[in-house]
Amino acid sequence: MAKYTIGIDFGTLSARAILVDVKTGKECPESGVFDYPHAVMETELPSGKKLPYDYALQHPQDYLDAISFVVPEVLKANNVSPDDVIGLGIDFTACTVFPIDADGTPLCLTEKYSDNPLAYVQLWKHHGAQEEANQLTATAVIRGETFLARYGGKASSETLFPRLWKIAKDDPELYADMDQYVEAGDWIVGQITGSYVRNSCAAGYKALYHEREGYPSKEFFKALDPALENVIEEKIAKSPVRPIGTKAGEINAAGSKLTGLNEGTAVAVAMIDAHAGVPGTLKEAAENQMVLIMGTSGCQMSICKDEHIVPGCFGVVKDGMLPGFYGYECGQSGFGDHYAWFVENCVPEKYAVAAREQGKDLHQYLTELADKLVPGESGLLALDWWNGNRSILVDNDLTGLMMGLRLTTRPEEIYRALIEATAFGTRVIIDNLDRSGCPTEAIFATGGIALKNPMLMQIFADITGRPFKIAGSKYGASLGSAVMGALAAGTERGGYDNIFDATAVMANLTDIEYQPIPEHVAVYDKLYEQFLKLHDYFGRDGSDAMKVLKQIQLDAIAAKGE
Amino acid sequence: MAKYTIGIDFGTLSARAILVDVKTGKECPESGVFDYPHAVMETELPSGKKLPYDYALQHPQDYLDAISFVVPEVLKANNVSPDDVIGLGIDFTACTVFPIDADGTPLCLTEKYSDNPLAYVQLWKHHGAQEEANQLTATAVIRGETFLARYGGKASSETLFPRLWKIAKDDPELYADMDQYVEAGDWIVGQITGSYVRNSCAAGYKALYHEREGYPSKEFFKALDPALENVIEEKIAKSPVRPIGTKAGEINAAGSKLTGLNEGTAVAVAMIDAHAGVPGTLKEAAENQMVLIMGTSGCQMSICKDEHIVPGCFGVVKDGMLPGFYGYECGQSGFGDHYAWFVENCVPEKYAVAAREQGKDLHQYLTELADKLVPGESGLLALDWWNGNRSILVDNDLTGLMMGLRLTTRPEEIYRALIEATAFGTRVIIDNLDRSGCPTEAIFATGGIALKNPMLMQIFADITGRPFKIAGSKYGASLGSAVMGALAAGTERGGYDNIFDATAVMANLTDIEYQPIPEHVAVYDKLYEQFLKLHDYFGRDGSDAMKVLKQIQLDAIAAKGE
Repeated sequence: MAKYTIGIDFGTLSARAILVDVKTGKECPESGVFDYPHAVMETELPSGKKLPYDYALQHPQDYLDAISFVVPEVLKANNVSPDDVIGLGIDFTACTVFPIDADGTPLCLTEKYSDNPLAYVQLWKHHGAQEEANQLTATAVIRGETFLARYGGKASSETLFPRLWKIAKDDPELYADMDQYVEAGDWIVGQITGSYVRNSCAAGYKALYHEREGYPSKEFFKALDPALENVIEEKIAKSPVRPIGTKAGEINAAGSKLTGLNEGTAVAVAMIDAHAGVPGTLKEAAENQMVLIMGTSGCQMSICKDEHIVPGCFGVVKDGMLPGFYGYECGQSGFGDHYAWFVENCVPEKYAVAAREQGKDLHQYLTELADKLVPGESGLLALDWWNGNRSILVDNDLTGLMMGLRLTTRPEEIYRALIEATAFGTRVIIDNLDRSGCPTEAIFATGGIALKNPMLMQIFADITGRPFKIAGSKYGASLGSAVMGALAAGTERGGYDNIFDATAVMANLTDIEYQPIPEHVAVYDKLYEQFLKLHDYFGRDGSDAMKVLKQIQLDAIAAKGE
Repeated sequence: MAKYTIGIDFGTLSARAILVDVKTGKECPESGVFDYPHAVMETELPSGKKLPYDYALQHPQDYLDAISFVVPEVLKANNVSPDDVIGLGIDFTACTVFPIDADGTPLCLTEKYSDNPLAYVQLWKHHGAQEEANQLTATAVIRGETFLARYGGKASSETLFPRLWKIAKDDPELYADMDQYVEAGDWIVGQITGSYVRNSCAAGYKALYHEREGYPSKEFFKALDPALENVIEEKIAKSPVRPIGTKAGEINAAGSKLTGLNEGTAVAVAMIDAHAGVPGTLKEAAENQMVLIMGTSGCQMSICKDEHIVPGCFGVVKDGMLPGFYGYECGQSGFGDHYAWFVENCVPEKYAVAAREQGKDLHQYLTELADKLVPGESGLLALDWWNGNRSILVDNDLTGLMMGLRLTTRPEEIYRALIEATAFGTRVIIDNLDRSGCPTEAIFATGGIALKNPMLMQIFADITGRPFKIAGSKYGASLGSAVMGALAAGTERGGYDNIFDATAVMANLTDIEYQPIPEHVAVYDKLYEQFLKLHDYFGRDGSDAMKVLKQIQLDAIAAKGE
């Protein structure tokens, strides 16, 4: 009888569960999906209470409703019995955090705090604690704290401590009333197992935790704010950090009631969603591999045996992506967003009409035209900074640039130049990792773009000078969680005891491989040289033009509003 | 009884005559237009003979057919008798040159040369003698010739001597058979008066003539090619140079037969078309004024009392634009072409649909949206080099650049940034003239854009920090020629004896004036500072990226063709 694990991916707007045959690695055809009724609350609470600018909140009841729907749904749709499910893994957007009481109840679900925005779930893209993030960075720099270097030298408002600090400052009573401040992924695991742990992935990338050094020191937190002196023991460390790929606990009575799974079913330590794509993709769990997640933004997830300081890396964490390895997270703030912006804003009517007549969407239509061009033919070069630069410059004030424009320049040339720009941006990240001691020997692309656009993938191979393999699952994160579920179950229950055995069977990789074409590489190497010069001129110390333009823009908008 | 002069503008594809009341300055409502039957011959001669790449020829019979049509037509349409026409002025595209025999017959109209491309009219945009132009520059530099400085340091293939030299080299027999090599404007004047002269405008801007120094020396031409040693006396100087604003001659019997005008009617020395816009626009013939011709490309025509060397100026010529003044010609290789490129290639379907629904063309539609923005609001900055840079860098290999692009950037913001870029480009030219001793105290804009787009004109006033007045005639060049016709007639016949009196009445200026708005000037001054930095970085010695990209492009296209 086949045995299965379930992987549930909690995304920004919905949760999706898939079911995977542990011994064949085959994904069952149907998945279970649930859209969060409250979605993202950016303007008001359910009560109608208005939210400040830059807030992005969620409602924790949505997560419970999601898990109670998608698990039975995926079982039913694929005609699988709970008796044949040996494990469950969960991944979640992060940092997605909220305060709970000693029973694990979110404070926002209590009457006292139901109308208090700070008691709600702060979604990964919530930026309400930007000031606290800036002060945290400044204090760490002044004190010479070493942890900052693991995070590109900057604390982000998209992490745990700035948010927790803001609560301590703005609402001491709420701070006092909370038993813990938790990641949503860890909380949902706690809700179905009774066992509250912190996963090494989110603790590492989002809560400054290091597997040898632990959290930042009491002295550091005291320097930040005397109220935070004991923040770790009081609000964080009651749940121990546990490495991914281990078992958090087993489905308990409450969990069984919620999900329909049998009591005793193994539940894995949670992961961050993007990071779960790594075990879902890398068939051979080995070092010096990179998973490139090609979405609206881009993530370069690299696996290494050792720890290195990588400038502009978003985070380096032991057990962050694959158990037993250091995971390096780099990223491009804009990736597919560039292409989408172009299609939305810059494609002339005649192209739209022609595409419609040919039954193609605009991406297809432009791609076919762009595919007729050879490297260098457009004469264009762009910097992929339409949404700023995450790695390796860590600078949101940088903006997009395109040069080489002529009266003869056609839309498909600009489209291709944008694709090339994102590939050059990826190469900068690869080269930077290389210089820092983390070589990239193989790249695995995942995301819809990777499966849909061979021209684009060939450009990535040509520009980076490296072969690209393509992930096979449409739901790489869910699949990675299912792999973790199999590790949590262990061989005894029909799963796996180590990551090597698990991914060898369960990770989903296609046979598609893009090899760099030497003639293309030669041309792109020349263009890359120019890209690097522009990158350093505008992104480092050559010109502050982009910042000046932004300041002029902010002043103009402010003056207009007066 | 009212007295009239006729101004005929010979453009690239057609000729247009207008009739102006000399004493009121009023243009008669109807004009006479004639499209050249042979238009521009770029691929083959009338015989079917194929033309080399980069050729652009015309047929001189078209000019005769044009003048014999448009003069009677404009008289008839406005119900004016030839008896009331006191003068005629002609302007012509230049350099538009061809060989004639001693009778004034174009050699291409003789049987011997009817199938010889070099015997035909080489239109201003003919680039068949690029190599000769380059060698002419090199020889002049080596010999330390001073004339080059008056032409931005470079000989253009769009001028007379490179073309004449090519004939001497490639077809010595044709060279020997020609009596003169003439500008079309001077030739048509000769055809109707029997008097062949060279106008100071074309001689100065297109044939290296200087009012004190004359043409380049025998020694220079000999150094270029021994065959050219006596080129001036043999092929050029048989027709003396005469200043614009003087009479070339009077309609003779042949001219009367051709045009229907009375014998004895005064005919002015010809002018170049763009330059004729100056007397058609400047009501007060005074120094330190600039006429900005806003067409597909842009021309900055400046009037000064003295001669100065202006770096990157296309030419400085005494009696080049207004009799008695030095005329400085600068230019932007791309002007309205930028906006047209954008509308053609970069405007999304939803905008096209909305514009159609509102009954607007896309320029109108985008302008209305762009007009809601304030200076600096878009965060964008562009270099107006989509067609290279004429003044002040004189570099066709430079290309367009846009920066400050974001995922939120909208089409109207890019459209406005392109308008701003052309205005910044104009300001660079104004500042450069200023530094060289030619201040600009008043600017007069002419061309369809100037009358049609108030937002654009306000941006030009704000960016240059100077008031802009707007020319009133739709046919500024024809009007300038009509002014010249009135000067040729003189007061005795009811015209004028000096340019001051003539333009005071006849130049056509609207009451529209755009004043710089101080708050806008303050913002644009900051953006201009950034523009200048980009301009110098990419256009002078900061970065050769644009040239490298072009070389990579040329290599790519060549490799693709193999």
